[in-house]
Amino acid sequence: MTKDEMRDAILDAKKAKGTTWEALGAAAGLAPEFTCSACLGMNSLKVEPAEAVAQALGLGPDVAAALQEFPHKSWDKLVPTDPVIYRLYEIVGVYGETIKEIIHEKFGDGIMSAIDYSMDIQKEENPAGDRVVLTLNGKFLPYKSW
Amino acid sequence: MTKDEMRDAILDAKKAKGTTWEALGAAAGLAPEFTCSACLGMNSLKVEPAEAVAQALGLGPDVAAALQEFPHKSWDKLVPTDPVIYRLYEIVGVYGETIKEIIHEKFGDGIMSAIDYSMDIQKEENPAGDRVVLTLNGKFLPYKSW
Amino acid sequence: MTKDEMRDAILDAKKAKGTTWEALGAAAGLAPEFTCSACLGMNSLKVEPAEAVAQALGLGPDVAAALQEFPHKSWDKLVPTDPVIYRLYEIVGVYGETIKEIIHEKFGDGIMSAIDYSMDIQKEENPAGDRVVLTLNGKFLPYKSW
Amino acid sequence: MTKDEMRDAILDAKKAKGTTWEALGAAAGLAPEFTCSACLGMNSLKVEPAEAVAQALGLGPDVAAALQEFPHKSWDKLVPTDPVIYRLYEIVGVYGETIKEIIHEKFGDGIMSAIDYSMDIQKEENPAGDRVVLTLNGKFLPYKSW
Amino acid sequence: MTKDEMRDAILDAKKAKGTTWEALGAAAGLAPEFTCSACLGMNSLKVEPAEAVAQALGLGPDVAAALQEFPHKSWDKLVPTDPVIYRLYEIVGVYGETIKEIIHEKFGDGIMSAIDYSMDIQKEENPAGDRVVLTLNGKFLPYKSW
Amino acid sequence: MTKDEMRDAILDAKKAKGTTWEALGAAAGLAPEFTCSACLGMNSLKVEPAEAVAQALGLGPDVAAALQEFPHKSWDKLVPTDPVIYRLYEIVGVYGETIKEIIHEKFGDGIMSAIDYSMDIQKEENPAGDRVVLTLNGKFLPYKSW
Amino acid sequence: MTKDEMRDAILDAKKAKGTTWEALGAAAGLAPEFTCSACLGMNSLKVEPAEAVAQALGLGPDVAAALQEFPHKSWDKLVPTDPVIYRLYEIVGVYGETIKEIIHEKFGDGIMSAIDYSMDIQKEENPAGDRVVLTLNGKFLPYKSW
Amino acid sequence: MTKDEMRDAILDAKKAKGTTWEALGAAAGLAPEFTCSACLGMNSLKVEPAEAVAQALGLGPDVAAALQEFPHKSWDKLVPTDPVIYRLYEIVGVYGETIKEIIHEKFGDGIMSAIDYSMDIQKEENPAGDRVVLTLNGKFLPYKSW
Amino acid sequence: MTKDEMRDAILDAKKAKGTTWEALGAAAGLAPEFTCSACLGMNSLKVEPAEAVAQALGLGPDVAAALQEFPHKSWDKLVPTDPVIYRLYEIVGVYGETIKEIIHEKFGDGIMSAIDYSMDIQKEENPAGDRVVLTLNGKFLPYKSW
Amino acid sequence: MTKDEMRDAILDAKKAKGTTWEALGAAAGLAPEFTCSACLGMNSLKVEPAEAVAQALGLGPDVAAALQEFPHKSWDKLVPTDPVIYRLYEIVGVYGETIKEIIHEKFGDGIMSAIDYSMDIQKEENPAGDRVVLTLNGKFLPYKSW
Repeated sequence: MTKDEMRDAILDAKKAKGTTWEALGAAAGLAPEFTCSACLGMNSLKVEPAEAVAQALGLGPDVAAALQEFPHKSWDKLVPTDPVIYRLYEIVGVYGETIKEIIHEKFGDGIMSAIDYSMDIQKEENPAGDRVVLTLNGKFLPYKSW
Repeated sequence: MTKDEMRDAILDAKKAKGTTWEALGAAAGLAPEFTCSACLGMNSLKVEPAEAVAQALGLGPDVAAALQEFPHKSWDKLVPTDPVIYRLYEIVGVYGETIKEIIHEKFGDGIMSAIDYSMDIQKEENPAGDRVVLTLNGKFLPYKSW
Repeated sequence: MTKDEMRDAILDAKKAKGTTWEALGAAAGLAPEFTCSACLGMNSLKVEPAEAVAQALGLGPDVAAALQEFPHKSWDKLVPTDPVIYRLYEIVGVYGETIKEIIHEKFGDGIMSAIDYSMDIQKEENPAGDRVVLTLNGKFLPYKSW
Repeated sequence: MTKDEMRDAILDAKKAKGTTWEALGAAAGLAPEFTCSACLGMNSLKVEPAEAVAQALGLGPDVAAALQEFPHKSWDKLVPTDPVIYRLYEIVGVYGETIKEIIHEKFGDGIMSAIDYSMDIQKEENPAGDRVVLTLNGKFLPYKSW
Repeated sequence: MTKDEMRDAILDAKKAKGTTWEALGAAAGLAPEFTCSACLGMNSLKVEPAEAVAQALGLGPDVAAALQEFPHKSWDKLVPTDPVIYRLYEIVGVYGETIKEIIHEKFGDGIMSAIDYSMDIQKEENPAGDRVVLTLNGKFLPYKSW
Repeated sequence: MTKDEMRDAILDAKKAKGTTWEALGAAAGLAPEFTCSACLGMNSLKVEPAEAVAQALGLGPDVAAALQEFPHKSWDKLVPTDPVIYRLYEIVGVYGETIKEIIHEKFGDGIMSAIDYSMDIQKEENPAGDRVVLTLNGKFLPYKSW
Repeated sequence: MTKDEMRDAILDAKKAKGTTWEALGAAAGLAPEFTCSACLGMNSLKVEPAEAVAQALGLGPDVAAALQEFPHKSWDKLVPTDPVIYRLYEIVGVYGETIKEIIHEKFGDGIMSAIDYSMDIQKEENPAGDRVVLTLNGKFLPYKSW
Repeated sequence: MTKDEMRDAILDAKKAKGTTWEALGAAAGLAPEFTCSACLGMNSLKVEPAEAVAQALGLGPDVAAALQEFPHKSWDKLVPTDPVIYRLYEIVGVYGETIKEIIHEKFGDGIMSAIDYSMDIQKEENPAGDRVVLTLNGKFLPYKSW
Repeated sequence: MTKDEMRDAILDAKKAKGTTWEALGAAAGLAPEFTCSACLGMNSLKVEPAEAVAQALGLGPDVAAALQEFPHKSWDKLVPTDPVIYRLYEIVGVYGETIKEIIHEKFGDGIMSAIDYSMDIQKEENPAGDRVVLTLNGKFLPYKSW
Repeated sequence: MTKDEMRDAILDAKKAKGTTWEALGAAAGLAPEFTCSACLGMNSLKVEPAEAVAQALGLGPDVAAALQEFPHKSWDKLVPTDPVIYRLYEIVGVYGETIKEIIHEKFGDGIMSAIDYSMDIQKEENPAGDRVVLTLNGKFLPYKSW
């Protein structure tokens, strides 16, 4: 079973069961964001959460096994088209240099890791319109001389 | 004075004065992230913060005027090369679909605005290595039928 | 049923029935432009218009369900090739800066939303040749400082 | 004087005079949208409006002459980055096929001209937030067999 | 039947019958160039020539129907690779500015339509080597001010 | 003097003199289309027409010499943006396969040369709107086996 | 049978028979390089060599017929990746201007044809390592004025 | 003195002196093709040929020094536009797979080096039109297992 | 059996057997890195290691034969997306000029071969976090004049 | 002083002094590879090595200051053209998947850091031709779940 087949099987089962990423994350004992990324094929799960997710969806051991495979992270479009994702790309374009300046000011020369990384999405209720609060948390990695 | 000339003048003055985005934000009465983005030419300031920034840097009214111009937001590279900014681009590629799934689960069909938007960067101290905490806060905009 | 399969089923049924977007929009209680965009897979319908469209086309509940899914908006060509669509792209290239200038003059710094948005296409009869009148109506979103 | 030099001279004079596209259009006896596009170098003016625009801005006959030159319409980015213009590009991507369907339904096989074309931008006041109303008006050109 | 299936059916039948575009054009009562472009899926035919072409090829009403569909004009390569077609692309690159200069000199500011358009290909016999004479005939469309 | 400097000098002198490509072609004893392409830097002239063109424009021997240099034919945009030139590009995209089919039917396997080539642009008066008649004439070059 | 199917059939039969391009060229009465290019679908053969090649490979008349079809020459990668082919691309990049200079010096303004063209590959034995000798032979085509 | 400045100085001096690559190669004691490539900045010369070339052109020691610098080989266009160079690119596209097949047949798995490489251009006189004979000679480099 | 089918068969068998590249390399008598690259379709094996690999995986002679075919080395993305591979691409971008400088300093004008090449990957244990040590070993190829 | 100006000043002084990266690294107390990358503007130096490098080259405090600035790492070509650097890019394309497989086998799911990274280049003398030994050493960063 490839990661693509796994993804389709999970999304079909999730729709049929009417379950949520929130519930699947709880089943896995992990954040819904991480659980979702693994189900979409962009991360791997350890054996227990993999089996818990498969079981919660009523899917078999081939799905649990596929969830444990190390993924090949791939995307097709240099510039994403879906508006949800494009807005994130636009934020990188508009605010990327700003983020670089502030990180350098607070930490020195280095980067925010995208590997030692976690992410959280919250709904902030607001009478002027609810807000998406997306928190990216990555380890600072300093450049070293040698 | 173009936005590019303004940017160079501000960065030179900031280095000569040894000041920080933190201090410039305080002078402007705005967040350092927003102040920095305006100084880099990616946002405009109202008259008072524009004058406060120029004054804090010992720069003249042409800089204050340029800070108030509506910017043309532009970037050259479809895929950024600087590692700080590339990691953000990679996060959009790896986690973009995940973010879309979670937003749809929590809010329904719609997007996180990149216009009605704010952003905050904190340093999280951690014995295993300090962490960058980058919080993106954008209004949820639902698709409407008509 | 994927959005692509839904789209093909709808276009086939529409041709077989000899019906129009005008009629399908009336059945849905929505504008023909919005109804068409949902049938092409670029927007989602609420349950009642989705069922009305499926029924008007003699299609089953899988189509009605697929119409309610949140779409992934995607296009393949950075520069469109079909002349109808290329002319719109050319208008963006030729008149984009003009539109930006006029919006800034009338509204200040901000954008026209493509999400809180509607669109209308009319035929203007004219002895020198009929004209297409395409009206785009989007909420103005001002940039905010923070 | 090249079109680029003309553009810069006009934008500088417009800012210095504190005038508007509305006023410059009135001086030219043309719509502000068309007048603006000519001042940005994307269209040419006949002799009288060209001289009227130059005079309204206190600029010389070289500007009036440059306004009458036939332009070379050029843009650099296949995908625009400024959010105002990108949203228009996104509308072409998301709704291009819909517009093609509706034009074909109302007119038959053909296109909306981007040459025999006019454009109008209005501010629609709305308590839920003002709206940009952008009307594109182009002659329908049918494909002919031969 | 899609346009692609139609195209394959026509090219197969044309080869099996050993017929020519010349003959198919005569059957349709249209130029061979236009008939060929419709058979390749780049133009649509009215009902009578569509039925005449299908009949001349011994093909059924599905082909005749597909020939009447409004096409989606699409090509894959920004720069064509086949040498026959690349040479045309090269001519556009090398002589495009020249053609623009001469059109402006003879007609004023405007374009040659690619919609209100016809095309003719002749063989010019020549002892130094026969020549291809390709005549493009498009309506001049002047830019208008508004 | 580079070809670019030559081009600018010629276009400036042509505008100042109020002369035409028609007249410059007559001075050179060549077609206006070829003369224009050489003045734009895309072809070279032999010594006599080069001197005749320079003289007709009141320009010096450096221009005459530059006109005789072998050009480096170069263009920047894979897809042209100016509408006059884009329409030609669109014709190559829409009709390229048709032209290939007809050339193969009339001549066999081979191409129309873009080197042993000439081109002519005429204005066809027409009460429904004048037409541009663009004739491309290239030697047929057959593929040979070896 | 498409050219792609023909190619696969020929490569499979060639491997099964353990034959060579050298032998297939001899069977066809043509150079192995040309025969190979036709078998890969990049050139067409006349009826006799086509039948000879098919017969030498024990393949049927559909292959012989497909070999006679006029090819559509197509490649997918603007920059080739296979190291054998990339090195040729690199030679064009590094030495293209040199080749242009030398051709102009020896022949005047014009090109080496890629149509009236042949090619030969030899193995040059050399104690320091054998060498590939690749000879490209194309007719010089001079630019003509008109 | 950069390689670009060196190149311009050499091309200017070569034109002023009316000399040839043939003569410059003879002065350097090297092939005209190699000498030309070094003068264009794509190869480096040892001290004696560098001084000989500079002297033959009446240029100073800065040119001789620049000729000895190790070049950065760079080209701007993925697909070349000048017809002389494009035809070489087309040959790589059309015949690249053929060359790969023949090299593998004659030599086994490996490549023709573009580094341990020489090149020769001859004029072959021919009553049907002179021919360019371009010979590429590169060491065969076998892949090795390890 | 194509190289792609071979690759899938090998990866499936490797997973089913629970074996490693280390073990497969030992079976082949080659480095695990080279063995892996051949199994992924990027290199060819001689007959004995090919048969040893097939046997170690319990696969048939078609796999052994496919391993001996000369590969067509191909990759799809100009810029890789998987983070493991992107980091290597980033190293080429950030340190490519440095590597060129140091090679020129130590060896003179020339390159490191990617053909006469081997590669080794080791795990360096380190209390601050284990390290990947990737050693690339390629023959220096000097440019030669001719 | 920008990083580009710094780079030019350093390269000029290095050539004028006839010094080496080896010597500059020794002066800085750092590896020549790291020192070179900082001098090319791709890394920053701390104050002492920055001053040591400037002094070793006879350059002033503006160079020492520029060496300490945090760099913006940027490269222009998605696919490098210089053969030294292209070969590295080719290694990433050909062996990237192999490296990913071996890293996953030895370390689990994660990457080799390009930030916590060092690099070493040695000359390996070899009678069959000297070899470049390029060692990349990066910390392994495991993906973590959250």
